[in-house]
Amino acid sequence: MITINVVCVGNLKEKFSLDEQKEYLKRLSAFCKLNIIELKEQNKFDNVSVIKEKEGEDIIKNLSGFSVLCDLKGKMFSSETFAKELEDISMKNSKITFVIGGSYGVSENVKRACNLHISFSSMTFPHNLFRIMLLEQIYRAFTILNGKTYHK
Amino acid sequence: MITINVVCVGNLKEKFSLDEQKEYLKRLSAFCKLNIIELKEQNKFDNVSVIKEKEGEDIIKNLSGFSVLCDLKGKMFSSETFAKELEDISMKNSKITFVIGGSYGVSENVKRACNLHISFSSMTFPHNLFRIMLLEQIYRAFTILNGKTYHK
Repeated sequence: MITINVVCVGNLKEKFSLDEQKEYLKRLSAFCKLNIIELKEQNKFDNVSVIKEKEGEDIIKNLSGFSVLCDLKGKMFSSETFAKELEDISMKNSKITFVIGGSYGVSENVKRACNLHISFSSMTFPHNLFRIMLLEQIYRAFTILNGKTYHK
Repeated sequence: MITINVVCVGNLKEKFSLDEQKEYLKRLSAFCKLNIIELKEQNKFDNVSVIKEKEGEDIIKNLSGFSVLCDLKGKMFSSETFAKELEDISMKNSKITFVIGGSYGVSENVKRACNLHISFSSMTFPHNLFRIMLLEQIYRAFTILNGKTYHK
């Protein structure tokens, strides 16, 4: 069973996000070992570059296997081509790490360190909602690959 | 204050979606009169074309003002250009209707009846999550237009 790590800067505060995350983690447990790795937001610093550098160092320490950065300017996939991409990656890797950056984005070092940059949308979403969108698409990908009816 | 109607086929079943919708409706009440209009899924029919036709008739009855169809193949906007588009539309219209179709999409009649087709993503999302994504982007648009700090 493949291991998928989702590295996120910042934690979930709202109960509805925590409940929705729990639901997707339950559904995903049938297909993969999914770990959420929450890193600290470095908002004690005033300077955006310093915040991105500090958060970036933490992110890089947590990269393992094939790493995928969620990036507004990344490559766009349909749900079907995203599923195919996940399948291709998992042929050669036993671990995939998805990275969701902090409020100010990620450092250049993180961008360089990641193997693939994917974009879910040209629009910016808050990190709590984006985390759910990512978990949902990973779950959807597994249902596509396994020919299962999507559990609504 | 502008009126925004969100016409959706199907209702929210999960408590976390209902709670998140409630949160965005509360925040949006500062900027607009937002109505959620939930239409019945026509899943008593077996034939997809019939479902889309029946749901389409209901949608068309509920279109008013400038109508925006959320469509995988629509025009993509950044959050900033979406905000600008909303501003431009609201200059000439006191009401905007957003349409979220059912599980099988919408009929050709609905496509023709809508003034603008917008795409949030090349990926498919479940209708409950998509409804939250739309409400969040409308809220984000108002914060951008009003120069407010985004309420996280």
